[in-house]
Amino acid sequence: MHTLWDERFALRTDNIGSSAIRELLKLSANGDVISFAGGLPAPELFPIEKFKEAADIVLTEMGESALQYGTTEGYQPLREMIARNAAKYGIQISADNVLITSGSQQALDLLGRIFINRGDRVLVESPTYLGALQAWNAYGVKYVTIPFDDDGMQTDQLESRLRTGLKFIYVLPNFQNPTGVTLCRERRMQLIEMADQYGVPIVEDDPYGQLRYEGEHIPPVVVLDDEMRAKEVPLYTGNVIYTSTFSKILAPGLRLAWVVAPTEVIKKLVQAKQGCDLHTSTFTQYLAYQLANSPWMKTHIHLIRRTYKERRDVMLKSLREYMPEGVHWTEPKGGLFLWVTLPEGMDSASIFKFAVMEKVAFVPGVSFHPLGRGENTMRLNFSCMKPELIEEGIKRLAKVVKNNIS
Amino acid sequence: MHTLWDERFALRTDNIGSSAIRELLKLSANGDVISFAGGLPAPELFPIEKFKEAADIVLTEMGESALQYGTTEGYQPLREMIARNAAKYGIQISADNVLITSGSQQALDLLGRIFINRGDRVLVESPTYLGALQAWNAYGVKYVTIPFDDDGMQTDQLESRLRTGLKFIYVLPNFQNPTGVTLCRERRMQLIEMADQYGVPIVEDDPYGQLRYEGEHIPPVVVLDDEMRAKEVPLYTGNVIYTSTFSKILAPGLRLAWVVAPTEVIKKLVQAKQGCDLHTSTFTQYLAYQLANSPWMKTHIHLIRRTYKERRDVMLKSLREYMPEGVHWTEPKGGLFLWVTLPEGMDSASIFKFAVMEKVAFVPGVSFHPLGRGENTMRLNFSCMKPELIEEGIKRLAKVVKNNIS
Repeated sequence: MHTLWDERFALRTDNIGSSAIRELLKLSANGDVISFAGGLPAPELFPIEKFKEAADIVLTEMGESALQYGTTEGYQPLREMIARNAAKYGIQISADNVLITSGSQQALDLLGRIFINRGDRVLVESPTYLGALQAWNAYGVKYVTIPFDDDGMQTDQLESRLRTGLKFIYVLPNFQNPTGVTLCRERRMQLIEMADQYGVPIVEDDPYGQLRYEGEHIPPVVVLDDEMRAKEVPLYTGNVIYTSTFSKILAPGLRLAWVVAPTEVIKKLVQAKQGCDLHTSTFTQYLAYQLANSPWMKTHIHLIRRTYKERRDVMLKSLREYMPEGVHWTEPKGGLFLWVTLPEGMDSASIFKFAVMEKVAFVPGVSFHPLGRGENTMRLNFSCMKPELIEEGIKRLAKVVKNNIS
Repeated sequence: MHTLWDERFALRTDNIGSSAIRELLKLSANGDVISFAGGLPAPELFPIEKFKEAADIVLTEMGESALQYGTTEGYQPLREMIARNAAKYGIQISADNVLITSGSQQALDLLGRIFINRGDRVLVESPTYLGALQAWNAYGVKYVTIPFDDDGMQTDQLESRLRTGLKFIYVLPNFQNPTGVTLCRERRMQLIEMADQYGVPIVEDDPYGQLRYEGEHIPPVVVLDDEMRAKEVPLYTGNVIYTSTFSKILAPGLRLAWVVAPTEVIKKLVQAKQGCDLHTSTFTQYLAYQLANSPWMKTHIHLIRRTYKERRDVMLKSLREYMPEGVHWTEPKGGLFLWVTLPEGMDSASIFKFAVMEKVAFVPGVSFHPLGRGENTMRLNFSCMKPELIEEGIKRLAKVVKNNIS
């Protein structure tokens, strides 16, 4: 009898890597570890009572359609709401420019599906979001990286990379995961112009855009791109594919995100999505619409901002107070993460086990570098721990770092 | 400025076809068309009050975890419940043999992802489920088909096909979509033995297994395969990957299904799913667990069976009453569909437009044949129309058929 399953997968799984973050989460989820490793929103902010009300309204007033199959494109009122909200930022789109996806992860996967042929080159920031790397590895992508500083990707180094031929450019302009860094306005413009000149699309991933805690809002790349284009084009036909999510402003358990793109791109994404999961849960879409389309939503986002700002401030203060000389970190103006750089020569992955022994966890920075490097870096999440735990956790982490400085 | 999006998709989308069913649904969803085209469960049977209770319990008692990120594998109590239920059928599995997916469509997609290299051959019944074809087309599969009669796939023709080299065999043994036909026990055994002999896995798709309206239950292929194997193997290590869904017994809007497979296969599927959508909605999983783990579930399935049986009976009676000579149909013992064969030479796709003019719709059978044929066939759904509409619809359809018999 044949039970050699591995033989049957020959060749097919070499490029489907396991998610380092998820495996680490499992390790550090036990007991009394103070974990800065995850990317979890604070569960105590989930609007549970509002969800109860919404579930009651949705089931009472439109239960039959909320529980039935839906269209692949997504729940029409939700798509229209997203289009309306985009209009507030000055970009004229309709529901036809919007696709609802099962989380941003699906948006990234579908983009890989429609764009990437084996061997295609994609430009990513280094470090960049792990989930994107994982999605696109499955399609045999080759990564081209661009260095990073406190103003985001160094766009003066874009042209040499564009000359080598790229399928698209992936950017997280606001409070980037993992570094927390924001791409400044000038560089956004440079990115847009260079990408347009070379005819290379931009994929803008913006999960934290609404979570800015200080400083002035910078328009998304998709909006700046649109502004640059002729005003006689009424609907969006630009060069940017934008994705955002309800995970950080409502709840990740819904698995709800969206893509804004030219209709040609949306059509291809819809075709791909049909084969992947037919459509995203109608019920969770109806719920999200009930909540996000109410004036309450704004208040709720303010609450999240206030809470996370306080936690970020506590983390920054604790880092200043406890970390030894030679350790540096970013000071994000929003989002969920900051990025710590240890003295050159230190290896954050090898001190991870000491950290767990001291009951504190983080994600070693090397995971976020598609072509390696970043051994002396780490990502810290500040959104899901209460302030007193953040201080205690940083104290523990600082102790581990001190003990390991040579 | 570059806006030629089509250029940018060069080569990548040739194999991602649009779903004929979904496009047809759009066409026939308007106004007063009696549609036998969809595969929708009857929405008036959705247990809306039960969903309200479940949402209230889940949000009140475990709101924070039900709305948070979850594991890729799925909600542990739900996986354990599925394992327990499988044990009732005589197959010893644990939660480690279960993966929760975002609908069966995702199960099919993930299986394509881990198994199919471009050019690999997969055996399917002809006709077979459209969603499977659509999922696997994206991976560059080559289909090998096997003919069909009233006892399901003709397993005496399996060996010649196995000799040519197959990646896996796809089978819908119960009340198959689109034909409604059930694979008899003898053929299930033959299938299992031949597949085992050639070391080719079987993918068993069983969305309607619990919707039998008459006759004796035949154990799933996965159970018969397990029985055949040595009893000293405590956990399942067999040759069958089984998938089923909550769409037909609770509600499709949840997008919840599951895969039962040897742990090696589950691990590969989990890796693939991480890149696709991280995990399935925690909230809908918690809801499904609340409902499906209660004794009420059994009563509810009985209600669905009674209702659909009546509708099937009305459709069969109407077909006998109104269809002209020379038209044949299957008499399914369960499920949602039956299959009509028009006289040789007739083309169901070309009479579709006359049918819509008469305000009745179906799916032309040719769509379900991966290598063509079946021009004179059509699929009719009997689950989502009330009896009086079924009779009226068949009357209209019979008129169209009569008018087009040459």
